[in-house]
Amino acid sequence: MSSRADRVAARLADAGVDCLLVASAVNLRYLTGFTGSNGLCVLGPGVRRFATDFRYVERARREVAGFDHERAPRDFLAVLAGGWPDRPVRLGFEDQHVSVRTHARLRELLPERVELVAAGGLVERERAVKDAGELEAIAAAAALADDALREVLGGGVAGRTERQVAAAIDAALRRRGAEPSFEPIVAAGPNGSAPHAAPADVPIPRDTLVTIDWGARLDGYCSDCTRTFATGEVPDEMRAIYDLVERAQAAALDAVRPGPSGREVDAVARHMIGAAGHAEHFGHGLGHGVGLEVHEAPRLATTADDALEPGNVVTVEPGVYVPGLGGVRIEDLVAVAPGGRRVLSGLGKALTTVT
Amino acid sequence: MSSRADRVAARLADAGVDCLLVASAVNLRYLTGFTGSNGLCVLGPGVRRFATDFRYVERARREVAGFDHERAPRDFLAVLAGGWPDRPVRLGFEDQHVSVRTHARLRELLPERVELVAAGGLVERERAVKDAGELEAIAAAAALADDALREVLGGGVAGRTERQVAAAIDAALRRRGAEPSFEPIVAAGPNGSAPHAAPADVPIPRDTLVTIDWGARLDGYCSDCTRTFATGEVPDEMRAIYDLVERAQAAALDAVRPGPSGREVDAVARHMIGAAGHAEHFGHGLGHGVGLEVHEAPRLATTADDALEPGNVVTVEPGVYVPGLGGVRIEDLVAVAPGGRRVLSGLGKALTTVT
Repeated sequence: MSSRADRVAARLADAGVDCLLVASAVNLRYLTGFTGSNGLCVLGPGVRRFATDFRYVERARREVAGFDHERAPRDFLAVLAGGWPDRPVRLGFEDQHVSVRTHARLRELLPERVELVAAGGLVERERAVKDAGELEAIAAAAALADDALREVLGGGVAGRTERQVAAAIDAALRRRGAEPSFEPIVAAGPNGSAPHAAPADVPIPRDTLVTIDWGARLDGYCSDCTRTFATGEVPDEMRAIYDLVERAQAAALDAVRPGPSGREVDAVARHMIGAAGHAEHFGHGLGHGVGLEVHEAPRLATTADDALEPGNVVTVEPGVYVPGLGGVRIEDLVAVAPGGRRVLSGLGKALTTVT
Repeated sequence: MSSRADRVAARLADAGVDCLLVASAVNLRYLTGFTGSNGLCVLGPGVRRFATDFRYVERARREVAGFDHERAPRDFLAVLAGGWPDRPVRLGFEDQHVSVRTHARLRELLPERVELVAAGGLVERERAVKDAGELEAIAAAAALADDALREVLGGGVAGRTERQVAAAIDAALRRRGAEPSFEPIVAAGPNGSAPHAAPADVPIPRDTLVTIDWGARLDGYCSDCTRTFATGEVPDEMRAIYDLVERAQAAALDAVRPGPSGREVDAVARHMIGAAGHAEHFGHGLGHGVGLEVHEAPRLATTADDALEPGNVVTVEPGVYVPGLGGVRIEDLVAVAPGGRRVLSGLGKALTTVT
């Protein structure tokens, strides 16, 4: 079985580079297993260099196999001044992660025969297709997150503040050995009309909708899910929006399979919501990939051209947000599987009343 | 009283630019008060542009005063295609935050008469000097963190795993309305020899040293503190290292005042530790600034030339790490004040036994 580093190295020639420099923490972890905050690797045919600083040398010995280890000097990047073959090298770098300042510093440090070539996205493309172990890690995070939310809902919602409910979700995740994959969103009533509202110090009223968007990170892998609940009787207008989002979410979920592009799946929900007169109230993409990061490739959006393939893990999360009134979002986490999909989110989606 | 944006704008001419583009989240928050995850501003003489996307428009209206608001299109940076005066503009950008890819995209989008000029660090330099409100926010975070640790120590340390103690610190911070400013470090026995060890699932033994490095984030501002405790009788060799680090920390703390450079303060502790034969066991800088970020300007290190000034808030944290044996680090958070300093960490530093 080829390693992740082998698979990325095998694609370097097509990308027009001889070697690839990887220093972004998540990509470095994916390729090498290193969990420290400062390190880098260089991949190429027969080349597997790994370097970290004084603080992480011991950890790297335990975590990083199959690479030649180097201890970087205090001027960390200076480790790249040497170790190059005696011929011209086209060195790819992650142009979406490397800052303009770091790029200038690399240019100073590298021998003249080493050319820097923008080559971002190679590791992200590999990460977009999960292996079996990664799928189980994400499924375990999703199941843990479901379980944590059930516990929090059991403690009641109406009358507690948005911030208290968010803190309770945080604590329930940590008690189960995970951590939040992002700060939980709890948005009730009119606050629900801001898709990324920060939880407020105001009690959640009765007879309204409350949107909860939360996820767990477990063994490095993330989950992401959203449910919108009722805290009693809700106005007919909001009930109608809920039904619309529920139908649009179910239809888009059915469209997730190998083959269609992210744009095509996005369009399923977008057309239904637009036909109901809410086009301008669905201002974000339908979904995004989830893995070591809570937002990664592939995307489900109006500008996403890549075809879905088995092993992709994406969210399907249409929403309708009406300023001054409120919002509804329903989100499942789903793995693309041969011929279909495997939904990783376990909570029901019929409008549920919590008190 | 001039605003933060005014003070940065007043320094643009000296930096050789007409305007400054700020899109890094922390600098944007510092200048504008915006707490969302995606926005940008442009500062210049008479220019105060602020833009965010669909998700944060409502939040920005509440949080951001004194700027002209724009709603960015889905292709976020395209908001910068227009709105420029009809003459050449030297536009500074934060070269340590802007990626090579974003820089290339900006170059495509901006009119030709707008020149991009690397100008990173202007906001960071302003942030390094805290105003009275910021000092109180940091002091409050430090006091809260001390209080949280006292509670955790009261629950016992020996026999619990490093990870359980770290999780207890996390929970104690959150119960007090804060969050960790970084994942707490709890490292006992030989684990203490890795300055940034991840807490392990192993019980903390009796008769050893355990280093705890933790901090709170409260209202956006961070604290940072480290104490090393004994869990019973410790070997004479480790006791001697503790005494050395305690003396070096006290001496370096006394050197903190307006005037000396970060290098000079670092040298006080480094010379004492070196004279005791442990030069190679103190592999990191003496300290770093703390504020909206847990690591920011100024630094106390062998390469730090800037003189300390009133309003700086820095850590003083010498450490000695002996592979296979263990480590000691003692860290205070301290504000540079006219003629001296104000120590913000409140826990004692004599070796304390916790069980």
